Amino acid sequence: MYQIGGEVSFMARKRVRELGLVIGSGTPGPRNAISDVPGVKVGHTTLIEGEGKLVPGAGPIRTGVTAILPHGGNLYDEPVGAAAHVINGFGKATGLAQVAELGVLEAPILITSTLNVGLVWDAAVQYLIDQNPEAAISSPTPNPVVLECHDGFLNDAQGRHVRQQHVLSSIEKCSTKVVEGCVGAGTGMTAYGYKSGIGTASRRLAKKHGAHTVGCLVVLNCGRRGDLIMGGIPVGKLLKDPQTDRMCPRGEDGSIIVILGTDAPLSSRQLGRLARRAVVGIGRTGSVVSHGSGDFVVAFSTVPRISRQKRIFTTRDQLPDKLLTPLFAAVAEATEEAILNALCMAESMEGRDGNLAEAIPIDRLRHLIERFK
Amino acid sequence: MYQIGGEVSFMARKRVRELGLVIGSGTPGPRNAISDVPGVKVGHTTLIEGEGKLVPGAGPIRTGVTAILPHGGNLYDEPVGAAAHVINGFGKATGLAQVAELGVLEAPILITSTLNVGLVWDAAVQYLIDQNPEAAISSPTPNPVVLECHDGFLNDAQGRHVRQQHVLSSIEKCSTKVVEGCVGAGTGMTAYGYKSGIGTASRRLAKKHGAHTVGCLVVLNCGRRGDLIMGGIPVGKLLKDPQTDRMCPRGEDGSIIVILGTDAPLSSRQLGRLARRAVVGIGRTGSVVSHGSGDFVVAFSTVPRISRQKRIFTTRDQLPDKLLTPLFAAVAEATEEAILNALCMAESMEGRDGNLAEAIPIDRLRHLIERFK
Amino acid sequence: MYQIGGEVSFMARKRVRELGLVIGSGTPGPRNAISDVPGVKVGHTTLIEGEGKLVPGAGPIRTGVTAILPHGGNLYDEPVGAAAHVINGFGKATGLAQVAELGVLEAPILITSTLNVGLVWDAAVQYLIDQNPEAAISSPTPNPVVLECHDGFLNDAQGRHVRQQHVLSSIEKCSTKVVEGCVGAGTGMTAYGYKSGIGTASRRLAKKHGAHTVGCLVVLNCGRRGDLIMGGIPVGKLLKDPQTDRMCPRGEDGSIIVILGTDAPLSSRQLGRLARRAVVGIGRTGSVVSHGSGDFVVAFSTVPRISRQKRIFTTRDQLPDKLLTPLFAAVAEATEEAILNALCMAESMEGRDGNLAEAIPIDRLRHLIERFK
Amino acid sequence: MYQIGGEVSFMARKRVRELGLVIGSGTPGPRNAISDVPGVKVGHTTLIEGEGKLVPGAGPIRTGVTAILPHGGNLYDEPVGAAAHVINGFGKATGLAQVAELGVLEAPILITSTLNVGLVWDAAVQYLIDQNPEAAISSPTPNPVVLECHDGFLNDAQGRHVRQQHVLSSIEKCSTKVVEGCVGAGTGMTAYGYKSGIGTASRRLAKKHGAHTVGCLVVLNCGRRGDLIMGGIPVGKLLKDPQTDRMCPRGEDGSIIVILGTDAPLSSRQLGRLARRAVVGIGRTGSVVSHGSGDFVVAFSTVPRISRQKRIFTTRDQLPDKLLTPLFAAVAEATEEAILNALCMAESMEGRDGNLAEAIPIDRLRHLIERFK
Repeated sequence: MYQIGGEVSFMARKRVRELGLVIGSGTPGPRNAISDVPGVKVGHTTLIEGEGKLVPGAGPIRTGVTAILPHGGNLYDEPVGAAAHVINGFGKATGLAQVAELGVLEAPILITSTLNVGLVWDAAVQYLIDQNPEAAISSPTPNPVVLECHDGFLNDAQGRHVRQQHVLSSIEKCSTKVVEGCVGAGTGMTAYGYKSGIGTASRRLAKKHGAHTVGCLVVLNCGRRGDLIMGGIPVGKLLKDPQTDRMCPRGEDGSIIVILGTDAPLSSRQLGRLARRAVVGIGRTGSVVSHGSGDFVVAFSTVPRISRQKRIFTTRDQLPDKLLTPLFAAVAEATEEAILNALCMAESMEGRDGNLAEAIPIDRLRHLIERFK
Repeated sequence: MYQIGGEVSFMARKRVRELGLVIGSGTPGPRNAISDVPGVKVGHTTLIEGEGKLVPGAGPIRTGVTAILPHGGNLYDEPVGAAAHVINGFGKATGLAQVAELGVLEAPILITSTLNVGLVWDAAVQYLIDQNPEAAISSPTPNPVVLECHDGFLNDAQGRHVRQQHVLSSIEKCSTKVVEGCVGAGTGMTAYGYKSGIGTASRRLAKKHGAHTVGCLVVLNCGRRGDLIMGGIPVGKLLKDPQTDRMCPRGEDGSIIVILGTDAPLSSRQLGRLARRAVVGIGRTGSVVSHGSGDFVVAFSTVPRISRQKRIFTTRDQLPDKLLTPLFAAVAEATEEAILNALCMAESMEGRDGNLAEAIPIDRLRHLIERFK
Repeated sequence: MYQIGGEVSFMARKRVRELGLVIGSGTPGPRNAISDVPGVKVGHTTLIEGEGKLVPGAGPIRTGVTAILPHGGNLYDEPVGAAAHVINGFGKATGLAQVAELGVLEAPILITSTLNVGLVWDAAVQYLIDQNPEAAISSPTPNPVVLECHDGFLNDAQGRHVRQQHVLSSIEKCSTKVVEGCVGAGTGMTAYGYKSGIGTASRRLAKKHGAHTVGCLVVLNCGRRGDLIMGGIPVGKLLKDPQTDRMCPRGEDGSIIVILGTDAPLSSRQLGRLARRAVVGIGRTGSVVSHGSGDFVVAFSTVPRISRQKRIFTTRDQLPDKLLTPLFAAVAEATEEAILNALCMAESMEGRDGNLAEAIPIDRLRHLIERFK
Repeated sequence: MYQIGGEVSFMARKRVRELGLVIGSGTPGPRNAISDVPGVKVGHTTLIEGEGKLVPGAGPIRTGVTAILPHGGNLYDEPVGAAAHVINGFGKATGLAQVAELGVLEAPILITSTLNVGLVWDAAVQYLIDQNPEAAISSPTPNPVVLECHDGFLNDAQGRHVRQQHVLSSIEKCSTKVVEGCVGAGTGMTAYGYKSGIGTASRRLAKKHGAHTVGCLVVLNCGRRGDLIMGGIPVGKLLKDPQTDRMCPRGEDGSIIVILGTDAPLSSRQLGRLARRAVVGIGRTGSVVSHGSGDFVVAFSTVPRISRQKRIFTTRDQLPDKLLTPLFAAVAEATEEAILNALCMAESMEGRDGNLAEAIPIDRLRHLIERFK
């Protein structure tokens, strides 16, 4: 496993809330993670290997896979209600047309780096047919959902180093403890001119609003340094960190993947409404959803499960639309906080050709936050 | 014309930039208004009449019409490239399906209060056939574009008091001087728990980015008081103004209409990409795009004009997509600033049943802004 | 009431099935009409006045309004699930963004000629607030759904002759007996080079498929004469009727409005899937959905009703998606047959400037049909 | 290579036009193929191996890959304008979100069987980075477009037998001679209860309409036997071929992939309008776009090419929208004829577990066609 030297890696990373910055007015769940939604689990496989000059196909490797399971059962057999939303379509996500048409998710959500999409898709098929030997023989073809961000600044992207076992392993390792930072699909990510990665957060609604939970997980790979805003503070401008081409891509481009889970009993139409609110949280962190961004959202509800046999929603439980606004607020806040966590929890990393993605400096960030209190 | 007493109305309103708050890092055009886009003009008809108890159909009246002209010529004859985007579809905007299909706008953009949509649409037809006697006889039917927000907290909405001459007058009065606040379609608006109305702003791109202008005009009618954010400052929480049911609708619902104009030579696909960035600016002011919002965006480019005879884009001038990000940033900033201007420029107003929409207190706002500098 | 002379008007019109042409393999309901869906009613107001030269604003008048009621109750209070689909957006339909966002229809569906959309929208508001005095005061603004086709070949379109009482009257006259041909919104329609108007048809599913009914009503205004296909027979080519400019618009342009009702318990997502199948029926009659067509579909389900108080779907009966294909087939067949009925039931009509829209010749059509048996 | 015995395989297959059936009134190009669009080429790799009982992972194999090249150059470097349309989203097509966002196609179009999508996507990446070593390092990630239909009735779908060299070979073999029937992605297809495969057709517009060519290629995998219509003749009902479960899937489900190419200089918005007309042709052959169909359309224009450096449309030749209708008619006709060719050119094939997909009987079909002349 790769280690970058001394000082930087020992600087303990903190979640943004631990730094004293409170996002919005909602209450996080106990883990402040997407796994606060009962049944939801997350797992990562992280691939870090080699250093130095890029040799396409050989390395260095800074990539991975992240899996999100809406529930612990057989998703092909018991899909969950789902919706997808494309904020900016410069991306290679797969499976979303079927999610939109049928309103269900029937596979683990897998996230990886861009050029690995094909191999991860293929591994997902293997996982699904292993679990459901009748699939694509006497039962419909399964629909893998694979999303991606590009990690070519640090990683040998052309090498496509993710293998089937890495995908299966990310699913097996799924747990309610969500690791953030430079893990899984977050391994090679950079954002707002700093090292980035996986971030998560959640909101639990007040009892009067139904006590539902909304959880968010992001793979963060977008934004320019000068644009970064944290809880209203123009951090990107105030940190005034000089940046060179070798220190994070200057590019305004990049992407963000947003996964939203909830136990609110919502139809796919309603989940689509939730998905369309993620951009509110994104915008608040400073992004303008640049031209080159592949910004995709998948939202799912774990209640009710849908049986493949019947594919019937027991819709008695569906929430009236007029109760959705608190859920929309939860989406905006959880997305904003998950993004900030992705930055604050990521450690500095050196990648191909000595490219260096520096972690956002926690101490100076803490000072800034205190100043604005 | 209606006047509310003494103190409040004398408090001079200021644009947010005059209060010392700078939104983003872009440079506004000379007027910091949508009319910085060459050729674009705006006109209002404001209807304020009566006080006291609501008598549906009789008053009191607090409503109006706002017209935006992309150019001073005959729009039916020389349409402009255009796109529309629905952020949240709880609204009654008309004409957008045709804009999406054909990529052109061929009528003045008209904005009014919700229940007036039909009458304003009809008046727009009269305007268009007066100008183009062949329309709908030997030439295609014209496509009025009418957008709306609901003003029922202050206005006798059921009365539908906008008449044909009010619409024609709003078009005639169009000028490059854009009046903000409680005028035109902004007359009866409330937002973030305060009186609201029309706001506008613009950004002029650096020469290296093409020196194009992006202008924005909003009719602002959304958001809860506690949610208001101005340039990152959680104003809504910090002002701590008590609010009763009679003082602005508590409701989280409402709407926003965003009109974007530019002289960048963009295709309708590219204008759609611009339109989809308005939500970034909206989100930054605190809205989560609530369930009841009718949030619609129309974006147009004044270059090139398209001849109805030929309907040919002289596409040599079209911008490459990779140059769009600075335009996206301009959209986000101009939308955010236009929203804040709509609040800061609106005066307090009493409407039906003594409902009182208070203006946001400029002096305390200025103090807050200074504190956060 | 207008009469065109002698021979033509005495030729009895027949529905296409009475002519011996059976469309598809499904079974129609007892009326072979949209009113076979329990609760659905249709009403028309027909305006025919004057002859001779067009005097814009004065006449001649050949227009009308058609109303479709999904149920006999208060739709604002008890909306029905609904979806909309735009096949080609060169049209001025209103209210569809809100139908798409919320998945409900809360007003009668009204269809009229293009330039009347504003006035009909306004009349719909009057109807809705008369029935619901709290609407737009203490309760949300109602969402009229108005669709249109252009009747300028026969009618003084610029005159906009539809008044509020015509709209209210079309609603009052709603009944389960659906009149076809040159009535209501169909009055001034032409299609496939012949006189056209209103058409309707239905399909009742087999018991094993749920015994649900799908009904369709069209306002038909599209297609070139040579393109007309009836039940596979290239009627347009075989009839070889010479056509001059004064005899029906040659134009390939025009529109079609398709209204689909069903008592199958479907979600708005599923209704959207039904709506997207209407084009199959349209295509089979020969149309290629020309550039100038405003082709819009609205689909609704009468089961379950949704209470505005709760906006909760109260059923657990929602159909699994895998049972939808027979409903899709029913949509395709009912749409195809409704289109053919609109042609076969329309009588010849002379309109402005002596423009003459001839009915399709029933006797020769019958011979053609027999020849192909 | 697999051979099924005697009689059947010797029955010469004919294109539908050779059988005396003329579809529509348009004129085909010289090859009546998508390659009539200058520069467009098609190549197939066909995999047929083994017989008998299905052993998942081992065979029998009845699958393949089809490649379509819009031009012979480097597509990543010189993309073509493009649009995509989802008729029914029960499918796994990849790359379409980016096509929609950016309006360009920058990779060969690849079609395969469903579960091979991941491996083919990965092979496409290899092809693109071999050709463009800077891709995903110093230049954006390439966007493979892979579409699919399911061939599980005949093929060991779970085995995913397509390898990288098969994909590369399908691209290398691209030529203007388009082979139809059981080749490439068409190898394992069945439709309308018969063996199906690849079909193609084209239309050349009259000089007065611009003399542009529209070409279509389909992979046909949908429809029930009883529903088949050929040029208006209800062939599916009239052939009365008994069908058992072992003889073609009874299922109403399946899919169709439609690729449209043209040399008309169209914007991506306009290509989207073309793509949305393919369903007219599909519907005319009897399909109702069943629930389980993954029906996707990709349309591209070879004029003008777009340089990646500039991404600027360099022409002022873009067609006015009002000239599009003849292109729409060409799309409908070419799609219909390509579908019929896919059936008429496919030979009978036995696949896994002895499943037998019979070719449509050419002789009896010819008799039927003659009878209806």
